[in-house]
Amino acid sequence: MELTLLGLGAMGTALARAWLAAGYPLTVWNRTAGRAAPLAAEGAAVAATAAEAVAAGDLVVVCLLDDASVGEALAGVDLTGKDLVNLTTGTPAQARARAEWAESRGARFLDGGIMAVPPMIGVPESGGYVLYSGSRALFDARHDALAVPAGARYVGTDPGFAALHDVALLSAMTGMFAGVSHAFALLRGEDLAPKDFAPLLVEWLTAMAPAAYEIAGQLESGDYTEGVVSNLAMMVEGNATLLRTAEEQRVSAELLIPFTALMERRLADGHADEGTTGVIELLIR
Amino acid sequence: MELTLLGLGAMGTALARAWLAAGYPLTVWNRTAGRAAPLAAEGAAVAATAAEAVAAGDLVVVCLLDDASVGEALAGVDLTGKDLVNLTTGTPAQARARAEWAESRGARFLDGGIMAVPPMIGVPESGGYVLYSGSRALFDARHDALAVPAGARYVGTDPGFAALHDVALLSAMTGMFAGVSHAFALLRGEDLAPKDFAPLLVEWLTAMAPAAYEIAGQLESGDYTEGVVSNLAMMVEGNATLLRTAEEQRVSAELLIPFTALMERRLADGHADEGTTGVIELLIR
Ligand SMILES: NC(=O)c1ccc[n+]([C@@H]2O[C@H](COP(=O)([O-])OP(=O)(O)OC[C@H]3O[C@@H](n4cnc5c(N)ncnc54)[C@H](OP(=O)(O)O)[C@@H]3O)[C@@H](O)[C@H]2O)c1
Ligand SMILES: NC(=O)c1ccc[n+]([C@@H]2O[C@H](COP(=O)([O-])OP(=O)(O)OC[C@H]3O[C@@H](n4cnc5c(N)ncnc54)[C@H](OP(=O)(O)O)[C@@H]3O)[C@@H](O)[C@H]2O)c1
Repeated sequence: MELTLLGLGAMGTALARAWLAAGYPLTVWNRTAGRAAPLAAEGAAVAATAAEAVAAGDLVVVCLLDDASVGEALAGVDLTGKDLVNLTTGTPAQARARAEWAESRGARFLDGGIMAVPPMIGVPESGGYVLYSGSRALFDARHDALAVPAGARYVGTDPGFAALHDVALLSAMTGMFAGVSHAFALLRGEDLAPKDFAPLLVEWLTAMAPAAYEIAGQLESGDYTEGVVSNLAMMVEGNATLLRTAEEQRVSAELLIPFTALMERRLADGHADEGTTGVIELLIR
Repeated sequence: MELTLLGLGAMGTALARAWLAAGYPLTVWNRTAGRAAPLAAEGAAVAATAAEAVAAGDLVVVCLLDDASVGEALAGVDLTGKDLVNLTTGTPAQARARAEWAESRGARFLDGGIMAVPPMIGVPESGGYVLYSGSRALFDARHDALAVPAGARYVGTDPGFAALHDVALLSAMTGMFAGVSHAFALLRGEDLAPKDFAPLLVEWLTAMAPAAYEIAGQLESGDYTEGVVSNLAMMVEGNATLLRTAEEQRVSAELLIPFTALMERRLADGHADEGTTGVIELLIR
């Protein structure tokens, strides 16, 4: 099997090094040719054009800036019979469109969402992984190579699913970091070291994360009161203390308010006995 | 030692049962007398008034609705020589004022923030605990009794610290649940079961929570670029994919936007090499 990689940015370079270290014959290409030089010294074949790089490989991995750059780099390139794996971040719709585009050019297509940063690539104990969706046949045939840079997890034949999972995870993390930022802001000016608070915070978030299982169960059953101990009425009361404390500590509540406001709306709609799950319905247009 | 408990709501009743089960002699009082009857049957002495209940105990635990109800219930009650432990949720400023109020009446004072729901009380393996702050002497003298309903953790002599920790943890959790709600909203209408996504989500949040250690370290050093791998410039680019996906999936981005907007502001202020830590400064008034 011949492996080709298009894109030698921070992530592409880390991927290339992982494959080279594992002994895979690798052809690389990057728009700015200079970035390939260190990899050439490490054993990679360097192609002068994307077309030449693609021609050299059976398995073609693409890791560029965004979906538009994938379209640009591969415009007019012959993909017939290729296994194309797109590790460029994009939306589910972009991944679906890219899959159609690739398949109509005679390639099998797999989209990937990288749940890791470059220093985690090629380091199994880092826990980094890549979410894959699209052609199961491609995934199975190329699994060994795909598993080299990071754990390979297949999440469905719908080529949009890797991006959907990726974005959902990053969105949830964004919320968590917003909460963490607010928490640390509350401590400012207090005689309390952030590093003394951090272990408690990490322990708490870790203990509370499994609430997602309860939410998932309620979404499946449609009964949003299932297993609820702290109900929306109690939580909205509790939110008043959170908001009042923000005020006391002179911290803007802008990161809390959108969610507390939705909880209040759902409560006002007559769902006092639910947990927070009903808020999800208020988000859907 | 004689133990008194004021307040037999959902939480007070759970506390009472834990102490009774552990063999502590207990006097209880509740504004609505009827709620004491089941506990009387389980061995509690029932006082007719709050003053009578307080007179019967050396260690007086209060678990009422809010700080105002504590003031009402204890108005004119003699607290001389008592150890008063307030497990009523409030703000740090309320706890500090309540401490002064109690001490000026001749009591030692400890404030508590209960990080548990009633079914976790008296169940050590539930991991529930109570944050305590205020009189260290009281905490040490009464530790054994205090540790009966849930783990007892002392966080400082400042009587406001238990509430400050409590609110900071709950605020962070609110952010996490906002993120989780957005994530599940993105999956709506897709052929993807919430319960199949939940394990990935819980694993991811658990893996990302320790980022709080890095934020704490940066807050201590004042260098918000310390150890940064994904910098603000990259994250703001990534946020565009999150927001575009929300749009595609017809999910309101209202839970994401406040934080992504602050990240953009901090980036515009010239902090491309930082992580998210600098956002904390934008929250402080
Ligand atoms: N870095 C991470 O932590 C991380 C984590 C998860 C996912 N990802 C994803 O991985 C992908 C690559 O990220 P990265 O960190 O490697 O980015 P990067 O360091 O900015 O590199 C971007 C790459 O895209 C190329 N490129 C940009 N526009 C192009 C165009 N129009 N035609 C051809 N090539 C073009 C660049 O080539 P030049 O050298 O010629 O500019 C470079 O090779 C992105 O989709 C990113 O979201 C990154
Ligand atoms: N339940 C939880 O999951 C949980 C978790 C952590 C912390 N907490 C905190 O624990 C405290 C009690 O919560 P809870 O769940 O037990 O609440 P609850 O079930 O609503 O009970 C409220 C208690 O406060 C009493 N009360 C209210 N106003 C009063 C007044 N003006 N004077 C005297 N008594 C008054 C009520 O007496 P009546 O029976 O006469 O109405 C009742 O005993 C709250 O501060 C809550 O935030 C609760």
